[in-house]
Amino acid sequence: MRLVSFDNGRIGIVREGSVIDVTDIAGAEPGAWPPVGMVRFVAQWDRLHPALLDALHSRTGRALAEVRLEAPVQWPNKVIAFPANYHAHIDEMKGVGTGVISSFKASGQGFFLKANSSLSGPADSIVLPPLAGREVHHECELGIIIGKRGRGVLHADSRSYVFGFTCLLDMVVRGKEERVMRKSYDTFCPTGPWITTADEIADFDNIEMRLRVNGEERQSASTRNLIVNIPDMIAMSSAVMTLEPGDIIASGTPAGVGPVEEGDVIEIEIDGVGSMRLPVTRGTVGDHPVWNKEKAGLAV
Amino acid sequence: MRLVSFDNGRIGIVREGSVIDVTDIAGAEPGAWPPVGMVRFVAQWDRLHPALLDALHSRTGRALAEVRLEAPVQWPNKVIAFPANYHAHIDEMKGVGTGVISSFKASGQGFFLKANSSLSGPADSIVLPPLAGREVHHECELGIIIGKRGRGVLHADSRSYVFGFTCLLDMVVRGKEERVMRKSYDTFCPTGPWITTADEIADFDNIEMRLRVNGEERQSASTRNLIVNIPDMIAMSSAVMTLEPGDIIASGTPAGVGPVEEGDVIEIEIDGVGSMRLPVTRGTVGDHPVWNKEKAGLAV
Repeated sequence: MRLVSFDNGRIGIVREGSVIDVTDIAGAEPGAWPPVGMVRFVAQWDRLHPALLDALHSRTGRALAEVRLEAPVQWPNKVIAFPANYHAHIDEMKGVGTGVISSFKASGQGFFLKANSSLSGPADSIVLPPLAGREVHHECELGIIIGKRGRGVLHADSRSYVFGFTCLLDMVVRGKEERVMRKSYDTFCPTGPWITTADEIADFDNIEMRLRVNGEERQSASTRNLIVNIPDMIAMSSAVMTLEPGDIIASGTPAGVGPVEEGDVIEIEIDGVGSMRLPVTRGTVGDHPVWNKEKAGLAV
Repeated sequence: MRLVSFDNGRIGIVREGSVIDVTDIAGAEPGAWPPVGMVRFVAQWDRLHPALLDALHSRTGRALAEVRLEAPVQWPNKVIAFPANYHAHIDEMKGVGTGVISSFKASGQGFFLKANSSLSGPADSIVLPPLAGREVHHECELGIIIGKRGRGVLHADSRSYVFGFTCLLDMVVRGKEERVMRKSYDTFCPTGPWITTADEIADFDNIEMRLRVNGEERQSASTRNLIVNIPDMIAMSSAVMTLEPGDIIASGTPAGVGPVEEGDVIEIEIDGVGSMRLPVTRGTVGDHPVWNKEKAGLAV
């Protein structure tokens, strides 16, 4: 199934270009704050599944084009991200002199977090902050949605913790500051257009994805080339933290990252999962002396 | 006022050693998941304030010792943390060779995030993961609770975004791995025992705090010595991200960090805010090859 958040907190299932509204079955409250409807829905999935199947067959949908899709999960417990998780991306970052890549690959470096507030959806623009002389890069990633609570999950059990997948862009300001800050601007974690449930993906180690900027392919990868694969992402993160339903894991990006500019259009496509097309705009908020040491007279 | 979360999602106000239950006024649902009752309460504070004052004077309380206090905020949008925010702590970390402190202080380095799942409360133990040869250090910090949504907040307006304060320990595994991972173990962000609302603190730049291990003072500091002060923490983080009611900012730690062991008792005390006394135990879950490169044969 493909699950969407839409129209200010409604929840739906996508069926052939239309959205079946299941807000009532999910028990979600449109407009409620904080927006945890999808997180609660994921946690109750097994119990609600029969009613959803029934709704999928008996209810009439609205055209997808008539609704406004939102980030599928808007207020998870956490957004986990794995850096340096493809050899070819590590190679391209060496010698760039940005200090972005440590001497560890993800298997020895671990993970970081992106802010929940950086999550945006398939109908939202990516807004570049007004930082003079800084590049903002696209990173094409697979988003893994966790389906149940777990700590110390074994590789062998990991599949049962995967609720589904979504397209995910890990946008980043290049530089030497804390990676988390560089990756947590509002709209720097576009996700969507929906969550495709795990039962629709036969082989987690063979998911193909690609990213285009203005129609030109920039990144292409398969999960079979991940350094830390999906079972180990779950094992490593759950060794440290209790995973909760709705948690998002960003897989790390393959080679081909590069800057985007105002007016660009980024397309991300993951086979069997979905695709999104996102315009890039320039915002007015986001500068601060932390981004300009010389101007601020700060020690570097 | 002093606000507590207790007994599985109830909300209360502390009055002279007793807890006045205001769960009904807050509209919180005990036992509901995810536990966002306090976040929602903070967002509605201005509207609910008259009813709370009334309850504070008219209702009978239960003894604090009879309830189980929980982390005041359990599922915020984010937990923001400022590293390297006291000169004396930067000095003590130089030459330690752990790679922990970059050449930037917080004013040039920015912030990172801790996982929501690392939040624990005043009745919880700090659980050390079973990592051979690794030290876990205590860091004594002030927790700042955000009261309203904001982006691009100016220094001059920052005070109105501070809802209150809480004691916060930023526990960390020392090492060269991603700081976020090293700081996000479950129970590595004890907070509490309550939120003291901002109106009770006259001068945000003169808050004194100290930390003791087994009765011996290890850390002592005042917010007047912060490199990035409270207004600039709010300005810097809101330049990047939309702050939400209930967001937590950890101030960064002063000098005197050091390892804790199973059986230790950590006390944190912040004048005008509160104090907590937390036992340290050893857990059985938490190891993974990422913590032991030689054993795992990983590139370092």
